[in-house]
Amino acid sequence: MRPAICVLFLCLSAALPGDGSADAAAPTMGDVLAASTADDWYTIPRSETLYLTLPQGEVVMMLAPQFAPAHIANLRKLVQAGYFGNAAILRSQDNYVVQWSSPGAGDGELPGGAARRLAPEFYRDAAGLDFVPLASRDAYARSVGFADGFAVGRDGRHGRAWLLHCYGALGAGRASEPDSGNAAELYVVTGHAPRHLDRNVTLLGRVIDGMQYLSSLPRGSGALGFYEHEDEYVPIRSLRFANDADAAWQVLKTDTATFKALVAARRHRAEDWFVDPADAIGVCNVPLPARKLSP
Amino acid sequence: MRPAICVLFLCLSAALPGDGSADAAAPTMGDVLAASTADDWYTIPRSETLYLTLPQGEVVMMLAPQFAPAHIANLRKLVQAGYFGNAAILRSQDNYVVQWSSPGAGDGELPGGAARRLAPEFYRDAAGLDFVPLASRDAYARSVGFADGFAVGRDGRHGRAWLLHCYGALGAGRASEPDSGNAAELYVVTGHAPRHLDRNVTLLGRVIDGMQYLSSLPRGSGALGFYEHEDEYVPIRSLRFANDADAAWQVLKTDTATFKALVAARRHRAEDWFVDPADAIGVCNVPLPARKLSP
Repeated sequence: MRPAICVLFLCLSAALPGDGSADAAAPTMGDVLAASTADDWYTIPRSETLYLTLPQGEVVMMLAPQFAPAHIANLRKLVQAGYFGNAAILRSQDNYVVQWSSPGAGDGELPGGAARRLAPEFYRDAAGLDFVPLASRDAYARSVGFADGFAVGRDGRHGRAWLLHCYGALGAGRASEPDSGNAAELYVVTGHAPRHLDRNVTLLGRVIDGMQYLSSLPRGSGALGFYEHEDEYVPIRSLRFANDADAAWQVLKTDTATFKALVAARRHRAEDWFVDPADAIGVCNVPLPARKLSP
Repeated sequence: MRPAICVLFLCLSAALPGDGSADAAAPTMGDVLAASTADDWYTIPRSETLYLTLPQGEVVMMLAPQFAPAHIANLRKLVQAGYFGNAAILRSQDNYVVQWSSPGAGDGELPGGAARRLAPEFYRDAAGLDFVPLASRDAYARSVGFADGFAVGRDGRHGRAWLLHCYGALGAGRASEPDSGNAAELYVVTGHAPRHLDRNVTLLGRVIDGMQYLSSLPRGSGALGFYEHEDEYVPIRSLRFANDADAAWQVLKTDTATFKALVAARRHRAEDWFVDPADAIGVCNVPLPARKLSP
């Protein structure tokens, strides 16, 4: 039974986009997406689509080889060598991250020829990246925006660009040494964007579906949100790249008129519910839509 | 068993604050808090401390009567009249909010003389508020900072100030009419700060303890994260104001040299782990510490 009272912000607007409750001259995000064409969507190669299967459900991730080629190549070796066969989520820290690895793997050599130490990929050359700036103030970077379906920071002076630690970002944990990340230990942001981590740790992609299975895990009671008892570990049934049997995933391109309209619709919320629309938007508040293609 | 490998960002720094792993000249947040004195902490009156008891655990909230006096007075009437005796969490939307109310209460008159319609308290007069600005760029407001232990936005031109929708903010849901919020339906932010809601809905406080019991609830599969079946509702054992039998809670004052040092320690992360400290901080990334006093 749905409760009788529907005293909810966004109730009308989000439930019924484009139904006349918003100003007809100002499309909502729902309107923008409904009007999108096939050309507005980018089909993620299966070799860059990662599936994490938990008892709770399936998490789908889109990798960013244009930002972290070496870490992704290392991850590929680890996956092929079955490194994550025994893996589990070992940490869930409230308003921060979940983190997984193979707890019985020890800290010796990694299998499949994967490197234990890798040169950091904290940022890349800004040149050659199709960066579309978001005209918004940002606490952490002089310029933020989007590239290839990812939220990105950019420093024109040093010619650098980097992925942002927005909600759902996928990263490679590391110890104190900058080259100690290797993708054998992965984390996903499950809280308010910890942007101070930007350019300090390698991000390799983002979750495009199933975030709720990671974000709703019980928080660990140990320091840093580690589960203190082995029976709290969340077993990972599999971590694998997509294959031909999987449906293809698409994300909305971020260098199109459609995406520009989406940002505008979220920057100025035209829905009747809003009495004082912000006319502003934070980079990690911009939705980056994904969809599964019917097989 | 703790995993053998501890390949974790923040592992050293957060686990061992002030142990020599950071530059001795630049204190960490742990150092700052360890050096704080009794005067740095504000004891929350029990009449402004709200307890939400769930099967999972206890959530403690600090109310902000200086921002939402009418909504808090209405909430007090509802609590005294037993309105929440039958309440449950009905909604958990990923990266957004949880929301609760009394599902069987209908939409007629509220008990205890509580008003069904209330003038919005979306902002207040900036005058008379001890506002301490945070010198940070912010996407949503020209000026952000802190007052009385809360994250606050300020518009000097219009002389207005308002609470911010940071993680853990407590608000009064409303329908389309701006005066339809009444505290009979409450929500807490469980995701990346939805700052576009600022000045569009009344905030009345923030969670100071037990956030993990709200943020880790299963997400609802219905529209807007509503639970679709009654047996998914999370029953609320009680919603009550603190009494003398409860331990007192304190929050760190936000207009002190100690808080200024805390912000500095988080703005420039001195811990060895960071190779490229941001020297920047977002208003919703600033920790607002709370502690329970031993009875």
